[in-house]
Amino acid sequence: LEQIIASIPPLSHSRMEQARHRLDMLTKPQGSLGRLEQLAIQVAGITDQLALPLEKKAVIIMAGDHGVCAEQVSAYPQAVTAQMVGNYLNGGAAVNVFAKRAGADVFCVDMGVNADLHHPHLIAKKVARGTANMTTAAAMSAEQMQAAVMAGIEVMEQLTNRGYTLFALGEMGIGNTTSAAAITSCMLGLSPELTVGRGTGLDEDGLERKRSAVCRALAYHQPDAIQPLNVLAQLGGFEIAGMVGVCLGAGLYRVPVVIDGYISTAAALLAAKLSPQAASYWMASHRSEEPGHGLVLEALQMRPLLELGMRLGEGTGAALCLRIVESAVAILSEMATFTSAGISSKYDEENVPK
Amino acid sequence: LEQIIASIPPLSHSRMEQARHRLDMLTKPQGSLGRLEQLAIQVAGITDQLALPLEKKAVIIMAGDHGVCAEQVSAYPQAVTAQMVGNYLNGGAAVNVFAKRAGADVFCVDMGVNADLHHPHLIAKKVARGTANMTTAAAMSAEQMQAAVMAGIEVMEQLTNRGYTLFALGEMGIGNTTSAAAITSCMLGLSPELTVGRGTGLDEDGLERKRSAVCRALAYHQPDAIQPLNVLAQLGGFEIAGMVGVCLGAGLYRVPVVIDGYISTAAALLAAKLSPQAASYWMASHRSEEPGHGLVLEALQMRPLLELGMRLGEGTGAALCLRIVESAVAILSEMATFTSAGISSKYDEENVPK
Repeated sequence: LEQIIASIPPLSHSRMEQARHRLDMLTKPQGSLGRLEQLAIQVAGITDQLALPLEKKAVIIMAGDHGVCAEQVSAYPQAVTAQMVGNYLNGGAAVNVFAKRAGADVFCVDMGVNADLHHPHLIAKKVARGTANMTTAAAMSAEQMQAAVMAGIEVMEQLTNRGYTLFALGEMGIGNTTSAAAITSCMLGLSPELTVGRGTGLDEDGLERKRSAVCRALAYHQPDAIQPLNVLAQLGGFEIAGMVGVCLGAGLYRVPVVIDGYISTAAALLAAKLSPQAASYWMASHRSEEPGHGLVLEALQMRPLLELGMRLGEGTGAALCLRIVESAVAILSEMATFTSAGISSKYDEENVPK
Repeated sequence: LEQIIASIPPLSHSRMEQARHRLDMLTKPQGSLGRLEQLAIQVAGITDQLALPLEKKAVIIMAGDHGVCAEQVSAYPQAVTAQMVGNYLNGGAAVNVFAKRAGADVFCVDMGVNADLHHPHLIAKKVARGTANMTTAAAMSAEQMQAAVMAGIEVMEQLTNRGYTLFALGEMGIGNTTSAAAITSCMLGLSPELTVGRGTGLDEDGLERKRSAVCRALAYHQPDAIQPLNVLAQLGGFEIAGMVGVCLGAGLYRVPVVIDGYISTAAALLAAKLSPQAASYWMASHRSEEPGHGLVLEALQMRPLLELGMRLGEGTGAALCLRIVESAVAILSEMATFTSAGISSKYDEENVPK
């Protein structure tokens, strides 16, 4: 894994310069597309192409179950993880609706759901049937952690081989905001008061149980932020480990990945610690209502594209952003220049104030 | 016109209630899609249907020239208005790129461009070849103003008859941020210091000339915010009057209209004064970099969906939002319910903490 991480290349700065130059020739006031221009430049650097059409899009949903559910940290029973996987495969979830409008295919990956799942469209990467309860044991062994991260990288290898060029990354796992909160508290040195939220809709008692579980997990493991892979094994989930792999895979296969909510961003935080280089291959989609999410985004210095008060996960926020990224990149290849369209630029003589 | 305005119906509150109820049955934690749920509810009220598929989408770009350009208030020469109309019709502008990703058709309307324009796809509604210079005369006569507003309503009649169900509204007109600033200063009682910005990219001297032009126009007309149609004739543009018509048409034909930047929002401000009812048929797309835009949005109590530092106009921000609105509405018809998908809801016995 270390070798893989070391092989992630930097963005192509010469291609970014080329994109910047081209943007200034297009029929619009310079800089007037704001952050879309930055997106176009970033993707040029990621792909090392001036304007790769991002027409084949994938939403990846990584699913896994969490032993910490025994602490009653979620408003929903654990069985919902497997049930929602079925919902994604049948096309009935919010992410399916959004992916359809984004022109994206949905890929659901079983990283560690606590059920026997069989479906022709499910990507089967199950490491185990759920993690152990992190309040009293490591969520997973070092071997399981490695296997899960590698599985995420493999998913990226397979999908890029199939021609996908733009990715949205989301997850499903009842109990996984608890895991995300523990990881965030550890990695950013923040009290669980700040990182634990209501998740899918906990009441006050539930919130207290969830905070307590995070505190006990941190006290039990005394995790060390300098060793992100250990933190992942101690406090993570199989779907979180898989997403770490996808985040690293973005850099390995030079494709842009749009990160979804709190849990996927917590995975990105671990991946960024493993490879700061890889982080330049990602973009933040939205800032969710879950309080810890904004803190992680800030630590990653990522500004989300949307702030719509969403807190659903499953890749919904990231899927909504795919068209924005695609539109930004298409500017470079599809817009006319001032010269090609025969339009007077602001520097024309005619316009000099007399 | 008064009769037309009086005939705009309120949103269907029973349909909104029905949408609200349905949203709470779908496979997601209640309220977890945030503002998307509010959008879905609003569109149900607008169309008086639970989930009208918004698949036929139009971007309307209204174009007109401005006599105030004689005051050298723009970084670009007036000829650019006509040249950019050509660019829209040839598919080379940013709005064309975004409309394509939104699955929307672009309709460019000549409301009053200072050139003879002929193109099979141009909607010809020219009232005159540009307005008069508002610093020394009314921008247009009362008859011209009426004709332009009616033309905007007709465009909406024609496009809704052709089956379009969701609209993005933008504009093109060199000099029209000056007009928007004058309208905003008058309608909101704000100093031009607050409402005049750099538009397409004015330097310091240009900004000073633009502020001065707005001050002189306001001093000359002493416009009265109680009479929005007079304000429109004194300070407006033909494309702004046309957009007032489109905004009213949204209410008449019960279709959602996504408003673009500063100039289209200034038109919406006038339309809202004419018919507060009509305003519930619109949504704000983005908050542009032009400082007055945020003030108008606030006055209209409209929260934009995007904040991407854009300041291009021509409907680009609104076009980017079409997929978001479409996605929000599709939730209602395409998502499974907890019951239909066989998913445990949070209220299941199994989940009650022991």
